[in-house]
Amino acid sequence: MRLAELSRHSGVSVATIKYYLREGLLMPGRQINATTAEYDEEHLRRLRLVRAMIQIGRLPVATVREVLGHVDDDSLPRTIRLGAALWALPQVPEPDEDDEYVQAAHQEVDALLDRLGWENAKRLATISPAYRSLVVAVAAFRRLGYGWGAEQLVPYAELMHRTAVLDLDLMETHPSQAEQTEFAVLGAILNEPAMRALHRLAQEEESSRRYGFE
Amino acid sequence: MRLAELSRHSGVSVATIKYYLREGLLMPGRQINATTAEYDEEHLRRLRLVRAMIQIGRLPVATVREVLGHVDDDSLPRTIRLGAALWALPQVPEPDEDDEYVQAAHQEVDALLDRLGWENAKRLATISPAYRSLVVAVAAFRRLGYGWGAEQLVPYAELMHRTAVLDLDLMETHPSQAEQTEFAVLGAILNEPAMRALHRLAQEEESSRRYGFE
Repeated sequence: MRLAELSRHSGVSVATIKYYLREGLLMPGRQINATTAEYDEEHLRRLRLVRAMIQIGRLPVATVREVLGHVDDDSLPRTIRLGAALWALPQVPEPDEDDEYVQAAHQEVDALLDRLGWENAKRLATISPAYRSLVVAVAAFRRLGYGWGAEQLVPYAELMHRTAVLDLDLMETHPSQAEQTEFAVLGAILNEPAMRALHRLAQEEESSRRYGFE
Repeated sequence: MRLAELSRHSGVSVATIKYYLREGLLMPGRQINATTAEYDEEHLRRLRLVRAMIQIGRLPVATVREVLGHVDDDSLPRTIRLGAALWALPQVPEPDEDDEYVQAAHQEVDALLDRLGWENAKRLATISPAYRSLVVAVAAFRRLGYGWGAEQLVPYAELMHRTAVLDLDLMETHPSQAEQTEFAVLGAILNEPAMRALHRLAQEEESSRRYGFE
């Protein structure tokens, strides 16, 4: 398809597509002659991904470029490629390793991973932003005087593991590895608001069942 | 305890405590004489809650005041009191009801609630920000060309319901209704980052199990 059609099919303006092309967020079309290029389904998919990252995820162009670099790097092992694409997304602040609550939280998170038998997550801990985010969250609870640790987190972690199984099952319904990696990135951007909303709706439902409305 | 002790026990500076008192975020102590007031456990708890909302949740003072107004309003039915406290927290943008994707998303979310048998959540739909957030998230998926709807969301919603059961069980371990409502607000602020981190850790674990590291 030509540029005008690509714009129509994607709902992205011609000017914006040209901008994405200039910034290297969209791969060039196949040049037919000096002024015309041909685009295909792959461009349409990429455009959808870029739009989700910029318009919904509100990511800066440099971050989008970094994520796409990982999505497209098929020299990487699959877990690392998926991880790298997600790890480039915005993360919480880094834990302050000198803080006593952070140190206690590290021990609790390690104990949690041991109890769960998540050996892979433990091996990835030194490079994983998710691991560090959990340490920050547990440290915040402890600083407020709540004794949150492995004990309280195990049942939550087990439910989140079942959620992750659903995520990957759904991801695997997409035919190619490239599409699967793209879907994982989209999922990280779109799923989290959906999960948060479902969680709160479920809290309302359960609260109403337990305590009624009046 | 005196103001200086309250500061030491809470880790909040005297100047900040005075600011919270002036802004009505902390109830006044029991006046002993013209210059001295006495504070107790309830002040310590309230201070912890205010600090979590401001320092971790980054909520403006007006929002904190609004949330506390609901936490303290024991004339409200319990579900509504819990809901009102959570609903005053920052929410996603409102759905644009003229948008065709939003309209389709409404139908999908209603179909989801029917399939789940969440009758209470459905009754609360017109006033619930969680319901509207879910509509916005589903509309975003559909706008990108993913046919997300009731079908795909049911297993996620069931896991989120089990998560909500854990939340309320944990909440009920706190002795008084006032403390339970406070815990629910803290949970909404602190739990979501923890859940997101656990979810991503679980994705890493599951991805490594399925695809290895190399």
